[in-house]
Amino acid sequence: MIPAVVIANKRDRRPLSSDEIKFMIDGYSCGRIPDYQMSALAMAIYLNGMSDREISDLTDSMIASGSKLVKVGDKPRVDKHSTGGLGDKTSLILAPLLACCDLHVPMISGRGLGITGGTLDKLEAIEGFRTNLTESEIHRQLDSLGCVITGATESLVPADKKLYGLRDVTATVPSIPLITASIMSKKIAESLDALVLDVKFGSGAFLATEELAEELAASLMRVGKDAGVLTTALITDMTQPLGGMVGNACEVNESIAILQGGGPSDVRELTIELAARLLLSTKREAQLDDARSRLGKLLDSGSAMDRFERMVHAQSGSIRAVRPIGQSRPFLAKYAGYIQAIDGQLLGQAVIAMGGGRMVTGQAIDFSVGLKMHCKIGHCLTEEQPILDIQCDDENKSQIAMQLVERAITISDEPQKRPSLWRNFVTK
Amino acid sequence: MIPAVVIANKRDRRPLSSDEIKFMIDGYSCGRIPDYQMSALAMAIYLNGMSDREISDLTDSMIASGSKLVKVGDKPRVDKHSTGGLGDKTSLILAPLLACCDLHVPMISGRGLGITGGTLDKLEAIEGFRTNLTESEIHRQLDSLGCVITGATESLVPADKKLYGLRDVTATVPSIPLITASIMSKKIAESLDALVLDVKFGSGAFLATEELAEELAASLMRVGKDAGVLTTALITDMTQPLGGMVGNACEVNESIAILQGGGPSDVRELTIELAARLLLSTKREAQLDDARSRLGKLLDSGSAMDRFERMVHAQSGSIRAVRPIGQSRPFLAKYAGYIQAIDGQLLGQAVIAMGGGRMVTGQAIDFSVGLKMHCKIGHCLTEEQPILDIQCDDENKSQIAMQLVERAITISDEPQKRPSLWRNFVTK
Repeated sequence: MIPAVVIANKRDRRPLSSDEIKFMIDGYSCGRIPDYQMSALAMAIYLNGMSDREISDLTDSMIASGSKLVKVGDKPRVDKHSTGGLGDKTSLILAPLLACCDLHVPMISGRGLGITGGTLDKLEAIEGFRTNLTESEIHRQLDSLGCVITGATESLVPADKKLYGLRDVTATVPSIPLITASIMSKKIAESLDALVLDVKFGSGAFLATEELAEELAASLMRVGKDAGVLTTALITDMTQPLGGMVGNACEVNESIAILQGGGPSDVRELTIELAARLLLSTKREAQLDDARSRLGKLLDSGSAMDRFERMVHAQSGSIRAVRPIGQSRPFLAKYAGYIQAIDGQLLGQAVIAMGGGRMVTGQAIDFSVGLKMHCKIGHCLTEEQPILDIQCDDENKSQIAMQLVERAITISDEPQKRPSLWRNFVTK
Repeated sequence: MIPAVVIANKRDRRPLSSDEIKFMIDGYSCGRIPDYQMSALAMAIYLNGMSDREISDLTDSMIASGSKLVKVGDKPRVDKHSTGGLGDKTSLILAPLLACCDLHVPMISGRGLGITGGTLDKLEAIEGFRTNLTESEIHRQLDSLGCVITGATESLVPADKKLYGLRDVTATVPSIPLITASIMSKKIAESLDALVLDVKFGSGAFLATEELAEELAASLMRVGKDAGVLTTALITDMTQPLGGMVGNACEVNESIAILQGGGPSDVRELTIELAARLLLSTKREAQLDDARSRLGKLLDSGSAMDRFERMVHAQSGSIRAVRPIGQSRPFLAKYAGYIQAIDGQLLGQAVIAMGGGRMVTGQAIDFSVGLKMHCKIGHCLTEEQPILDIQCDDENKSQIAMQLVERAITISDEPQKRPSLWRNFVTK
């Protein structure tokens, strides 16, 4: 088989055979096929798309580049994947919460790149927290606690690590077939029984519209179901940040508030909605309302918090160590009115400008910086009312963040409805 | 400027600015931009195309990656470029022929790859012939003889050499914008006054149809004219080989026959047609018929042959040294009828199978092998009449070639017209 011939097939909109896809991914993974051929193929896939069968083959080939997590014990194994959004800290709550329902949650997470934060970065705001567990550590912790949140091991879908890095610098990231294979290869390699997807749209997510989110959700669910994973999805709103906090240490603190039965209602509601789908998929509950109520009680009773503390401890983290938060400066409404829109891209850039996120891989993160939202879309403001606080010890960086925040918030005289948080997504 | 942003612009069909194109070609040429970003951009250009302005900018940026041939003396400088076809040996005749008309012909040629032969390979069938002249050797020979046929120097459009190698292995060769910039950058860098293009279509060329040939011709002519080069084009037939010989040594011999006033009429006619356009462009002649007649006389009188011999001598070649030709085996008509079609791809593969062409760069060539055509499309055959001779000393290779030839020739009862050789191409 000749790589240029395979590339030419996709270029000319001829479907690639299973063998052709396997040949390219295997070859790329072991270094036989160079970056420049894979990037030409990625661009051809970006522009000409892939059929459902090709996407499944691509996902399978990527899984086969490494080894799946061994399934141990008989408890159902579940996970959630979110396409990423501003202030999305649901993973930190959801993993211990589901472990309380006698499920195993081997949550393999990533770091932030671009405007959305990464679960691993947030957890590393907890002093000592390890995100590089070995496969045997993952298995031991699943067995003892039922949940683990850690980075990918070397052997888990190595082709994705390599291909993602290449896509990032060749303008081939936002492609439904490539995103689907990237996400689902990693989740299927966790040997899951059930998966819930949180597909976000809006200014604070990487998909701008609900239609694109639906398209991606359908593709992800199809591949999940084909692989024998019970897959459900919620389409969720990201036209404004989730919860009150955007940053790393401050999002850990907000997650702990939720785990203790408090915290902002949108984060609590979304976490419960996502977790409830997994209780239904695994037949832990038969009715959605029963699932919701059970999960709410586990938060209110402190059971979920107890599990979280044990997980942090097991991963060498010190939950009681001080997590410094940057100095607070309020951003005030210039005039009275209603908040019409919040540009998540600009808010995200403000956090990055303060050092709370990264623009290139490997950059160090300042966990202490962040934004604290006081008002959301639809809020009726009086003049000089604080809309949010910028939290940062560096005054210069605060100023830059302040300018970005000012551009991000739109106020007008017209009343504006609060956007609905989520929508159940069911494929035909 | 960020390479991935430039790639994303072309991916999303936004036109690239002159600065963006220059940034990518400069960067690629000096190694700042890696192969994998250039191949992603090449695929995006392949699939989304380029505007006329972008193609001109691309051509200019490629020229600027090296230095142009210095223009010396006051004689008009002319050249021909052919997109390549089976049995096309017109360059060998045209360069000395035009030098006889007091023109300078700095013909920078290439090697064969795929089914079409290369002018440099053919000339190297002449013992000792040098195709690696330095720039000062080129200038000296132009000054003394008016013509030179040699390979590109290191400083002539180095970006093209690098980009062509990359396109070859990433399925991005047959793209009008990329072909146009590749061809025209090299021709404009010769500092020409006038250029004639021979754009070929049919089974023996890389463009299958007359429509594609027209599209490429229009793009090439536009860029040539924009650069101040008087550019004309012929669209020429490649549904069957040009002349009687396909190979290397045998094509040199056929060229010499034409240069001595003999040889097959199609080669003579096409060479005269192409050369005549340059006599008109440079005002050496005012009427096409006068130009044709002057060129015919230069062939018949032996003047062109004399110039060819002096060029071969100047480039260290020995024209009188024996050029071995492989053992001849006839391919006979299985039954009586008319030749309907000749598949140039298969004939070309037959020559390669015998070692007369190369499938990978750098492969050594057997100059002695070839095909000798006795009949062309429309020829009325009797049973067992020889259609062509296979010339090869190796019997096994001959057998493989014979099988390919058998598949290449279509015979039927229906009379078939001989295709017309060429068509003048004029853009609006």
